[in-house]
Amino acid sequence: MTVLYAKLADQIQQLISDGVYRDGERLPGVRVLSRQFGVSISTVLQAHQTLESRGYLEARERSGYYARVPCKDAPIPIMQRPKSRPAPVTARDMALDLCTVERKHMVALGAAVPHADYVPLRQIQHATLWAARQGLEALDYAFPGKDVFRRQIAQRMTNLGVVTTHEDIIATNGAQEAIILALRAVTQPGDIVAVESPSFPGILQALEVVGLRALEIPTHPLEGMSLEGLELALEQWPIKACVVVANHSNPLGVRMPDSQKKRLVDLLAERSVPMIEDDIYGDLPFEGERPRPAKSFDTTGNVIYCSSFSKTISPGLRLGWVVPGPRFAEISQQKYFNNMATASIPQLAVAHFLEQGGYDRYLRTARQRYKEATERLRAAVVREFPEGTAVSRPMGGFVLWVQLPHGASGTTIYHEARERSINIAPGRMFSTTDKYEDYIRLNCANPWSERIEWAIRTLGELVASQVRRAA
Amino acid sequence: MTVLYAKLADQIQQLISDGVYRDGERLPGVRVLSRQFGVSISTVLQAHQTLESRGYLEARERSGYYARVPCKDAPIPIMQRPKSRPAPVTARDMALDLCTVERKHMVALGAAVPHADYVPLRQIQHATLWAARQGLEALDYAFPGKDVFRRQIAQRMTNLGVVTTHEDIIATNGAQEAIILALRAVTQPGDIVAVESPSFPGILQALEVVGLRALEIPTHPLEGMSLEGLELALEQWPIKACVVVANHSNPLGVRMPDSQKKRLVDLLAERSVPMIEDDIYGDLPFEGERPRPAKSFDTTGNVIYCSSFSKTISPGLRLGWVVPGPRFAEISQQKYFNNMATASIPQLAVAHFLEQGGYDRYLRTARQRYKEATERLRAAVVREFPEGTAVSRPMGGFVLWVQLPHGASGTTIYHEARERSINIAPGRMFSTTDKYEDYIRLNCANPWSERIEWAIRTLGELVASQVRRAA
Repeated sequence: MTVLYAKLADQIQQLISDGVYRDGERLPGVRVLSRQFGVSISTVLQAHQTLESRGYLEARERSGYYARVPCKDAPIPIMQRPKSRPAPVTARDMALDLCTVERKHMVALGAAVPHADYVPLRQIQHATLWAARQGLEALDYAFPGKDVFRRQIAQRMTNLGVVTTHEDIIATNGAQEAIILALRAVTQPGDIVAVESPSFPGILQALEVVGLRALEIPTHPLEGMSLEGLELALEQWPIKACVVVANHSNPLGVRMPDSQKKRLVDLLAERSVPMIEDDIYGDLPFEGERPRPAKSFDTTGNVIYCSSFSKTISPGLRLGWVVPGPRFAEISQQKYFNNMATASIPQLAVAHFLEQGGYDRYLRTARQRYKEATERLRAAVVREFPEGTAVSRPMGGFVLWVQLPHGASGTTIYHEARERSINIAPGRMFSTTDKYEDYIRLNCANPWSERIEWAIRTLGELVASQVRRAA
Repeated sequence: MTVLYAKLADQIQQLISDGVYRDGERLPGVRVLSRQFGVSISTVLQAHQTLESRGYLEARERSGYYARVPCKDAPIPIMQRPKSRPAPVTARDMALDLCTVERKHMVALGAAVPHADYVPLRQIQHATLWAARQGLEALDYAFPGKDVFRRQIAQRMTNLGVVTTHEDIIATNGAQEAIILALRAVTQPGDIVAVESPSFPGILQALEVVGLRALEIPTHPLEGMSLEGLELALEQWPIKACVVVANHSNPLGVRMPDSQKKRLVDLLAERSVPMIEDDIYGDLPFEGERPRPAKSFDTTGNVIYCSSFSKTISPGLRLGWVVPGPRFAEISQQKYFNNMATASIPQLAVAHFLEQGGYDRYLRTARQRYKEATERLRAAVVREFPEGTAVSRPMGGFVLWVQLPHGASGTTIYHEARERSINIAPGRMFSTTDKYEDYIRLNCANPWSERIEWAIRTLGELVASQVRRAA
């Protein structure tokens, strides 16, 4: 569907690319363009917004819009081949730092947490008021979860090709807890677990909590975990479980093609290695249908599915779930022994929100907003970072994985940026080795602002100056 | 303070004890007594209620009040000396059973969970509505807890002699999680941890989750954990931590005298063995002031304090906290790695409830109601169970610990009772050995009803018939 403003945006972009408006040149005023193209003023403003997010226009306060020729697109990071030896997981302390300090006054490019503006605040407030009015049901203790919540989840899972009833669902305190419960059910301390490389730090932390060793499997930026790499690793090592984020993995933002998901599921099932799927970003594709979870290809019950609403509705609900399949008894017992049950009020509120259709309506706008925010931040990085930078091209979620040019260290940038009140995630958090020392991850789930623009420019300068010093 | 109705109750009780009203005899009507003693009708009714809970009166619908001479009081269970060898914790599966099955249709004498009638439903509903209206604050992600909640807790802790600020508090998903975080911070799998005997099953489950061995220390029904027993154990075994419920421990209901608390704290500090205090029943004494936590005698920071609102406000909130002292960094990291944070809405709601003074008002009535409910159930057990039964005399909380006469098995009674839709907790759940095979625990937090009366009578008959069979 090409709407009027998008058409206009394309036309203006062409004019800029063709050099009709040159880099830095002021565009005619909004009224002039409105007359010139025979469209309304609001259409011109919408087109301008689109071009801003594409990096072709810059708005200057009380001055107007200026043409900008984005530099050529940066390459995407290449697939890294981490040392293929299992490593104990330690010193993930930076993650903690990232989360506790960030929220006060810093530019929040660090933790992958949606900005307040992106959270369906009013709807959840409404749903919570509803939950509070449910009387005892809201205070009652429900193991392994509130039935109303479990029913809604079972319905959604079934729609995604994972046929379940509410009795297959355990409510958890976020996806992190779900993954830990799953790991405890299928491993013993000291066991080896295969993970993507780069890895979401929460998964490495989960391995650390359970006392496991991580074996990092190369992960392709456009195809996800390398199945060849995994097969090789399975031959060499007694791998006891494999944790995979098949949809919009963090930090790469890559979605595995369905054919790969199926191959992965079969590969692990054949070898009886339990697979733990973390589908926390599955609801946030940039284009097209909600992708299928790998679990939907599971015919043997070998996949334990984990997810949560922390990246969509809000992290403060602390509400996730696990679909353990045939491992229901072990995993529900783990849940019970660890903290008995998940708080009831968030479960009721989310169940109501889902049932009323609010969540699906919310997702439609959220996907569009995250896509635009990510593209805009990406364009800014491409523009402001020195040559030799590579940037991921995510298919969903809201983070960017940035490989810095030769000579720059993500950890140094992290510390220098903090001094300037900018928070980012240094690459070393995403591995048990120092493989990703020259990477950083950026959180894009922030409304665009001059402060963010300044932050990206500042980061670009810090990187450039490091590269110069190293040369 | 002896109020009018209590005085009247004492007078009538004396008349019953003296045989003026004989066992089973109908008392004069309420109006007659009101004239006779020169008090109001409502005072007579209050006195009657008191005598009912003491076991001296029985109300029969549309018929009036009948005198009842309670049998002689039963003895309290003696202190058991469990085998003093550390044991791995396994097969605590009955606890799970207890909780999941009970709530549907059974007489709920099993899990130590307050009945719906005892929960401050309206107040918490009100507080939750308030929380939902706090906008983003309610959805925001707060590690290691919401400041408003932590401030309220810090204030209460300070009032109890544990001087803290909000920065000393970590919000947890119940006390169970708090204990597990504390255990993980101070032990390694395989370590030996000293616990009370009989033990709260949740503590044994926590040990199981962390992979620890339990060393059961004899616990006196009127003084709490035997310090002599503990000292002996500390000399013999490399004990790495000691978990203690100093106030109204479950199942004994015993409160350690303050002098013992201090000795215990000093004993463990001298030997650098971390003490984990679970104070979940501390707010529910039957008489007098709220007892001091053992932590208030801690001058070295060796005590990790854990508690929650599950036994007071409601278990479905899943809201507890830990005061880790100098171990704040390790324990907060454990919390973060395990499930990031505790849900925000319950924290805001409880903070509001506490701040408005609602909790303290609620506690005043709750203490009285739990006392009466426990005394009434105790009187019923004394009356209905065969000779040779011993019953604990709890000082707070709402459970009874019942030693059955020779020949009766708690586990058999548990199974036979379930067939009759009565849920109880068999003694074997409270130990890693079969020490308490001849015990059961009864939950008293239910409003009195004919069904409960029937249940106790039925249990008494089951025990009696078992004893006969064994003779």
